[in-house]
Amino acid sequence: MQYFTDTDMGLDIGEVNLAVESAFADHGRGLVQMPPKVYITLPVGDFRTMPAYLPSLGIAGVKIVNVHPGNPAKGFPTVMALTVILDIDTGQPTAVINATRLTDMRTGAAGAVAAKYLSAKKEIILGVIGTGRQAQAQVAAISRELKIKQIKIWGRNPDHIRKFADRFMEFPTFALSIENTCDCDVLVTTTPSKSPIIRSEWIKKGTHINAIGADAPGKEELDPALLVRARVFVDDPAQAIHSGEINVPISHGLYRADDIAGTLGEIVTGKKKRAGNDTITIFDSTGLAIQDLAIAKIAMQHGKKIDLPFP
Amino acid sequence: MQYFTDTDMGLDIGEVNLAVESAFADHGRGLVQMPPKVYITLPVGDFRTMPAYLPSLGIAGVKIVNVHPGNPAKGFPTVMALTVILDIDTGQPTAVINATRLTDMRTGAAGAVAAKYLSAKKEIILGVIGTGRQAQAQVAAISRELKIKQIKIWGRNPDHIRKFADRFMEFPTFALSIENTCDCDVLVTTTPSKSPIIRSEWIKKGTHINAIGADAPGKEELDPALLVRARVFVDDPAQAIHSGEINVPISHGLYRADDIAGTLGEIVTGKKKRAGNDTITIFDSTGLAIQDLAIAKIAMQHGKKIDLPFP
Repeated sequence: MQYFTDTDMGLDIGEVNLAVESAFADHGRGLVQMPPKVYITLPVGDFRTMPAYLPSLGIAGVKIVNVHPGNPAKGFPTVMALTVILDIDTGQPTAVINATRLTDMRTGAAGAVAAKYLSAKKEIILGVIGTGRQAQAQVAAISRELKIKQIKIWGRNPDHIRKFADRFMEFPTFALSIENTCDCDVLVTTTPSKSPIIRSEWIKKGTHINAIGADAPGKEELDPALLVRARVFVDDPAQAIHSGEINVPISHGLYRADDIAGTLGEIVTGKKKRAGNDTITIFDSTGLAIQDLAIAKIAMQHGKKIDLPFP
Repeated sequence: MQYFTDTDMGLDIGEVNLAVESAFADHGRGLVQMPPKVYITLPVGDFRTMPAYLPSLGIAGVKIVNVHPGNPAKGFPTVMALTVILDIDTGQPTAVINATRLTDMRTGAAGAVAAKYLSAKKEIILGVIGTGRQAQAQVAAISRELKIKQIKIWGRNPDHIRKFADRFMEFPTFALSIENTCDCDVLVTTTPSKSPIIRSEWIKKGTHINAIGADAPGKEELDPALLVRARVFVDDPAQAIHSGEINVPISHGLYRADDIAGTLGEIVTGKKKRAGNDTITIFDSTGLAIQDLAIAKIAMQHGKKIDLPFP
């Protein structure tokens, strides 16, 4: 068994995007095993357990990931993750992977795949709501798939906006109001909001939105009226209904599971389309275990490792 | 983060039994979080993911365990396990534990707790069906809670029977037919059978049975007629209905979930009783994640460990 200590080093974002796209294609073809993630609630946070088997890559395992919103004040990241990989043929654990940064990258990659297929334009003004690790991961990944002409950024903390702009100096970046940031071609929302912060009237026709922040019951970022105007694609229906952007509107009767236009896997495999340049499209991302397996496969080829005895 | 390499060394079986009993008491009082285990099917085996949170011990984590019946021919154990422990307050992974032998011990401990509370006698003739690791773990654990006067053993392989008898030389041990082995006070069944091997008419009044082998859909060891004669206690209703001894009879309409007499947690907390010395009682064990957390807590106090960097 090997422990991979720090596995974002040297990973090529383009390679990660491609691996995640391939995992979504398998998902769209029904070629993966992936039960919905399981939540355990702790006093000041939660953790999620995400098992899967991806036959095309010959990889099976489990990601374990927490969300503790109060962690930054304690000097820890909000989200930390570990992935355990098992040998298909014997079930023996063969790798334990520090997957904290990989989780950022694989979520960014899903957003990049969604934007690649669902954006009406190839050269875009990118709007970003939020300035944290996931906002940055989305920009880094999307920049490999589409040409970013300009970034509009909105966040609550001016220091964080400055750090964000410093990281992406290759793009003209403008700190704007939330409303003006929404005036873009591709919008990425990455906040932990528990009530809508994006109003429907701010979103013009033809916009594609990556709704990333809502990943647990009770979380939502978008005006439910916007969902009704848009074609909503999810990563996985069961997870999205339980904990994605659509979870609160569904529980309030403002959106129906039957309204879901399809999955990202169906988009990637060509079974579903965005339907016209005036359509508003939304990708509701909850995060799939198969994304974690796809990036784990790459990380195990490049990461630093420590040999551990097992059994 | 620490990796615990080999954690059965030095663990006191009595201490493990007590910790597992305490975990069942918490379960009986509704004080734990434990969703049903999740199965992933691989080409020649499966693996199960078992998250839980046990507030009384301040421990949360996930056990990952495979079952690959063809492994012994490849030189691997059929069952191997790894447990990941997370810090409650931050969600950070703090320990990875080689849990293969711990899995044997904690399953043995559940059988010992069930036998302690449900056996009509304190001095028993113990019948054992099967000769593998779990059969031995059951005997070792039960011997701490009840006085074993004699062991009757049945298995298919004479070499395995001899090894079993050699391990338990302190008890008079007799290799018998399966029918004669069933003539005992406490019977333990530990086979991977997919059809009943224990006939109802072989079981006399007042016998307690630990039904350990059935832990996946399609597995069963006991004549369904025996279930109907008996009071059946389960470790966890959802898991037992899905994958325990009662799963096949329920799917065939020969047993009803409503017929379950109660849980081991309800027995330990005194909410339910065995009901008379003539009653046949059955403990349907599927294995709970809280058992794994309870033994992990002890193992982390005693086991050899390697420090690993995280994050």
